[in-house]
Amino acid sequence: MRTVGSSRESTWPAIRKAGIELLYRHGFEAMKLRELAKEAGLKGGGSLYNYFESKEDFLFRIMCEILDEILVELEETVGRVQGDTARVKAFVEFHIKWHTGRRAETLISHMEMRSLSPERYRFYVGLRKRYEAFVMNLIAAGCKSGEFSVPDVHVLTQSTLSMLTGVCNWYHVGGRISQKRLIEIHQQMVLAMLRSSELNGC
Amino acid sequence: MRTVGSSRESTWPAIRKAGIELLYRHGFEAMKLRELAKEAGLKGGGSLYNYFESKEDFLFRIMCEILDEILVELEETVGRVQGDTARVKAFVEFHIKWHTGRRAETLISHMEMRSLSPERYRFYVGLRKRYEAFVMNLIAAGCKSGEFSVPDVHVLTQSTLSMLTGVCNWYHVGGRISQKRLIEIHQQMVLAMLRSSELNGC
Repeated sequence: MRTVGSSRESTWPAIRKAGIELLYRHGFEAMKLRELAKEAGLKGGGSLYNYFESKEDFLFRIMCEILDEILVELEETVGRVQGDTARVKAFVEFHIKWHTGRRAETLISHMEMRSLSPERYRFYVGLRKRYEAFVMNLIAAGCKSGEFSVPDVHVLTQSTLSMLTGVCNWYHVGGRISQKRLIEIHQQMVLAMLRSSELNGC
Repeated sequence: MRTVGSSRESTWPAIRKAGIELLYRHGFEAMKLRELAKEAGLKGGGSLYNYFESKEDFLFRIMCEILDEILVELEETVGRVQGDTARVKAFVEFHIKWHTGRRAETLISHMEMRSLSPERYRFYVGLRKRYEAFVMNLIAAGCKSGEFSVPDVHVLTQSTLSMLTGVCNWYHVGGRISQKRLIEIHQQMVLAMLRSSELNGC
């Protein structure tokens, strides 16, 4: 039964918000749909099934939406920047800001993949490859133009992503290093890696 | 009641091995101590309580033992190497080999920290800082000797660790790139980062 004033369109964002918070706090296995309904302000857990068919279906929808969102923002923010070095710097800034700003979303995206069914896991990994492909194209373009020189574009892509995403595991907002400085240091490190073949004579 | 032939000393390794496998497969929340007793070849789940007091106590013991092991191996392998650049290269090789070779242990160490009680979480993080401190000292020594020049030793330490640990999320043994090549590329990238200040004039 629907709560007065809650249409499908207006309720999903509330479910999504509460869902991300619960997944972050308890993990998928431990979270309860009953609690989700309560936190989202729904009366009776049954109405959740207007939005998804099962708990795993809920997780899948949340995870895909997070990924869709970051892809759109990535293309909007970095896609418009001109020049290979400038684009890499814009990407480093975008990635660090997104992942440190949205810790819950970041954690869920990385921790809960194993809770997806094999079919959905494959779909999700495929979707994530679009993000990786964007970064790989960025690096490949710079290698083609001669701005970068790397031992292996694929390895560079993955290692850069690991390094930048890892920031949320150790960086504390308001700590010794400002976000601005954090981004500058990472831009410098990533550019050093992207020019590492020149240096090492490979 | 003890099963014939199982002393405490000989049984813990079996429990530990089965425990790591179950934690890897199901995660801490979903794993069952009953299944652990069965997989470890114990008759009756009760005898598990000779080894730990609770499920969380079990997780804590496993996690600390994994960390102790890697610390001992790190000091044995990298501690004896002479020269700052050679030591960093040895560290990159050690870290990649350990983390790609022991995926279950790596996953548990990173995913299950949130399942520890606050007090044990703090203890565990403290223990982990010994590993980070080893790497930080490696980098700081090279900066002192003039072999390295970095914008921030702490950031370099964390970012290097994120990049190297991240390898187990994307690298497939037997794939396009051999482990030997993977290690070479990462040695090259890490050394480029460790000399990034010279390049960028910071």
